[in-house]
Amino acid sequence: MEEIKLIAFDADDTLWMNEYHYRKAELEFCEKMQKYTSAKTANELLLKREKQNLPLLGYGSKPFIISLIETAIEISNGEISTKEILELIEIGKETIGQPIELMPDVENVLSMLSLKFPLILATKGDLKEQESKIERSGLEKYFTSVEILSEKSSESYRRIIQKHSIKPENFLMVGNSFKSDILPVLEIGGNAIYIPSEIIWAHEIAQEIEHPRLKRADRLSVDLFV
Amino acid sequence: MEEIKLIAFDADDTLWMNEYHYRKAELEFCEKMQKYTSAKTANELLLKREKQNLPLLGYGSKPFIISLIETAIEISNGEISTKEILELIEIGKETIGQPIELMPDVENVLSMLSLKFPLILATKGDLKEQESKIERSGLEKYFTSVEILSEKSSESYRRIIQKHSIKPENFLMVGNSFKSDILPVLEIGGNAIYIPSEIIWAHEIAQEIEHPRLKRADRLSVDLFV
Repeated sequence: MEEIKLIAFDADDTLWMNEYHYRKAELEFCEKMQKYTSAKTANELLLKREKQNLPLLGYGSKPFIISLIETAIEISNGEISTKEILELIEIGKETIGQPIELMPDVENVLSMLSLKFPLILATKGDLKEQESKIERSGLEKYFTSVEILSEKSSESYRRIIQKHSIKPENFLMVGNSFKSDILPVLEIGGNAIYIPSEIIWAHEIAQEIEHPRLKRADRLSVDLFV
Repeated sequence: MEEIKLIAFDADDTLWMNEYHYRKAELEFCEKMQKYTSAKTANELLLKREKQNLPLLGYGSKPFIISLIETAIEISNGEISTKEILELIEIGKETIGQPIELMPDVENVLSMLSLKFPLILATKGDLKEQESKIERSGLEKYFTSVEILSEKSSESYRRIIQKHSIKPENFLMVGNSFKSDILPVLEIGGNAIYIPSEIIWAHEIAQEIEHPRLKRADRLSVDLFV
């Protein structure tokens, strides 16, 4: 890692917990649907709907709310009450603005690293929701810049690298999504540290590979960067 | 205008039509609500709901869809059918991905100006929706950078000015919202060109003032910049 000149961190489920709030909302959704179908089917249909909505609506709580409503109407064959629809909207809204719970040792690792490297935050999702989480995390001070992307493709990483006038081999990305944080970075010749999270959104699951420029770890620690 | 070193353009309803699609959706909403209440009341309640949702949900089509559903349930006293709720979701989704209709002379003005000044695009709203509109507009080539903001405050303009290492008096903002494009720029000592659009979202209406660093025009033209 001697050549690293810029380190980028993913945010959700790398620096702080996020998916947890969505899992909780999904459980509440399945509970409401249990008079119509099994939790397994409810969850599968919700996921399918989210996938259909993804290209048009993108990431975050708002597409989630819309998918909850559409799926509930589908599952109940139109029988769900408007009172229950309002309750589903509330379940979805509760995924926004939850207290930020940092992952273990995050603050320590960032404060140490920021003395040696320029750090950036590279996250995808809803602009307003991500800005709010970054602000509430108290971590913004460790980063020289924040990139909120609508998608994490090799093209978006290439742009970050160009903007900082470095070569791909000088770039290191740290994240919990093999699909969004790791694969596209390895693809353009960058380095990556993969820290799988306990829970991950089904749409972020990708085939994992071994790679000479890839490290894997159970949790964030300073040792990973030496 | 001899001192201008950077010109920023607002996007929605400055470079291309946007509010028009929302007005159309609102009309369809009011039509659906006419068995319960007048168009005037339906529109007022929708606007009130949008305002309530703004701090949590932000701008764009997705908060609009959620507000449509909540307002329809309120207006119908819970009587609206799930079939109609699905229709409202479709009405809201149709505001996304509409063909981009450029305002008169936009391409000509941008191509001329881009020879003399660095131009940036400064828009607020939903990241994914704004990126898609910019791409489909074909105008991205005239801009040296694109700033998609969650809010247009004096603080966000100050950050843009700092990033480009210029003074406020060297900055010119062009837009159709007095509240978002004009007032905060004048406040920090910048210049502004105000081109009111025929239709504007009620939440963007602000008290208009006269100011020595402010020009007002009916439409975009190269003459405004000499």
